Amino acid sequence: MKPLILITNDDGVDSRGIQSLIAALQDLGQLFVVAPDGQRSAQSSALTINNPLRAHKIMENESLTIFKCNGTPADCVKLGIDQLMPRRPDLVVSGINHGNNSSISVIYSGTMGATFEGCVGGIPSIGFSYGSPDARADMTGAMNYANLIARQVLENGLPEGTCLNVNIPHYKEIKGVRICRQAKGLWKEEFVKKEDPTGKEYYWLTGYFSCPDIDDETTDEWALGNGYVSIVPCTVDMTAYNFIDTLKTWNYEKK
Amino acid sequence: MKPLILITNDDGVDSRGIQSLIAALQDLGQLFVVAPDGQRSAQSSALTINNPLRAHKIMENESLTIFKCNGTPADCVKLGIDQLMPRRPDLVVSGINHGNNSSISVIYSGTMGATFEGCVGGIPSIGFSYGSPDARADMTGAMNYANLIARQVLENGLPEGTCLNVNIPHYKEIKGVRICRQAKGLWKEEFVKKEDPTGKEYYWLTGYFSCPDIDDETTDEWALGNGYVSIVPCTVDMTAYNFIDTLKTWNYEKK
Repeated sequence: MKPLILITNDDGVDSRGIQSLIAALQDLGQLFVVAPDGQRSAQSSALTINNPLRAHKIMENESLTIFKCNGTPADCVKLGIDQLMPRRPDLVVSGINHGNNSSISVIYSGTMGATFEGCVGGIPSIGFSYGSPDARADMTGAMNYANLIARQVLENGLPEGTCLNVNIPHYKEIKGVRICRQAKGLWKEEFVKKEDPTGKEYYWLTGYFSCPDIDDETTDEWALGNGYVSIVPCTVDMTAYNFIDTLKTWNYEKK
Repeated sequence: MKPLILITNDDGVDSRGIQSLIAALQDLGQLFVVAPDGQRSAQSSALTINNPLRAHKIMENESLTIFKCNGTPADCVKLGIDQLMPRRPDLVVSGINHGNNSSISVIYSGTMGATFEGCVGGIPSIGFSYGSPDARADMTGAMNYANLIARQVLENGLPEGTCLNVNIPHYKEIKGVRICRQAKGLWKEEFVKKEDPTGKEYYWLTGYFSCPDIDDETTDEWALGNGYVSIVPCTVDMTAYNFIDTLKTWNYEKK
C-alpha cells in the first residue's frame, strides 16, 4: 500500500506554498490535504474550542483529496486524522510556508503548530518553510528538498515525540543540508502605535529580528545565512531537564 | 524599588483566576495587568498579525494598573513590555488558569503561551494553573503556592530560556511541591460530529486524556494525581539535541 500523507499549512489552501508541496510529494504516496480556508499565520498550536469546525471537500481524485477547513493548522491535523482521512496517515507534512520559521519563530508558527500536532499524534511529521515571504515565490529548489527529506523520513521514521523543522533558503544555489539547533534569536521593538480616524490608539505588530548566535555554525540561522537548508529536530517535550536539580533545592515551605 | 510584575492570563481579565493571582502577589511588588478582554483558552503562542491591537486602561492606583486588550495572551505580554509598562518587568506571571496545563497541554495553553513570551523576552516567567475548570473555584490554596513560588523566582531568578509551568491540584490538602518532567499524555477521540439546522455537518473538539506514564513518579501527572503541586521547568529551545547525530547520517543528495 502506498504511504498516506496528510498535508496542511498555515497560509491557506489556495497558497502557492501548499500547491508546491503537493507537487513535490506526488510521487511519494497518496496525498490527503486538510488545510485552512485562509491565512492562519502565527497561530502556533492554537485550537478552536469555542466554535464548531467545518470541513469542505473541494477536490478528490485517485491520488489526491483536498479539504478546506475553517480552523487553525493544528485543528486541520486533528480533524484530518480523527474524522476525515480513511486511515491514520504515515506522514504529516506542513508548508511550504511563505517565509522562514527558524530560531524562535518555531514557537509562533502555524506551520510548526501543525507539525507538532502530527508529532503528538505519534506520526512522523515535517514542517517546511521557504526563505521568501513573497506569495508568488518560485519554490522549485525547495520542492526538491521537500521530496528528498520526506522520502528519508518515510524510510527511516522519527523517534517518538520528535519532528523536523526544515527551512530552505531562497538562494538559487543551495549548498546542501545542515542539521542544526534552534538559534537564540528574538524579535525586538515590536509595535508601531497609530491612531484610527476617531483618534483612538491602536498597535500593529512589527519589529526586527535580533540573533546573538547567528555566527555560531551549529545554528539554523547560520545555515540559512550561508546558503544551506537547515533541519532542526524538534521535541514536543518542553521540559528543561538541566534545571530540575536546581529547582529541587528551592524552598517551597510557608514562612 | 519594588519589583514590577506583569500579570496576564488566557481566561480573560474578568476571570476569578486572574483576580486570585492579583490578590496572591500584591505583597510582592508593583502589579501591572495586561490581560485579554475575553476567553482566549488554547491560543498557545498565537500572535495577532493581521489586525490592529487595542488596549484600554480599566483601573490604576499606586500599586495596581489593569489594561484589557483585544489580543491573545502572548500579544498581551508583548504589548505590555514594549508599549504599556513604565519599564521592563522583573517578573511575568500568567494565570491562575481555570483547569490543568500539565503534560502535553503546555503546547496548546494560552496561559503557557504568555509565559513563554515573557521567557523569550528574557524575563523570569511563571504560568500557574489550577486543577478545576470551575469558573467559581475557590483558589485560596493555589494563591498560597503562587505567592511562595513567585517569591522564590524573584529571589533566585531563572536561567535564560527557562520558565516554570506550575499546576496546583484542587484538593483541600496539598502534600507539597514536586519538581517534575512533562508527562507523555495526549488527547484521543477528539471530535463529535453533528448537523446544524440546515443539515450541514460540523465538528466540536472534545475527547479524553490518555497518559501512558501517569504512574511514573517523575511526571507532572503523577504529582497532580497524588496531591502535589507540580513544577515543570520549561525551555523555549525546542531542539531535540539527542537526535542531531542520527539525522547527520541520513542521505540528502539527489539520486
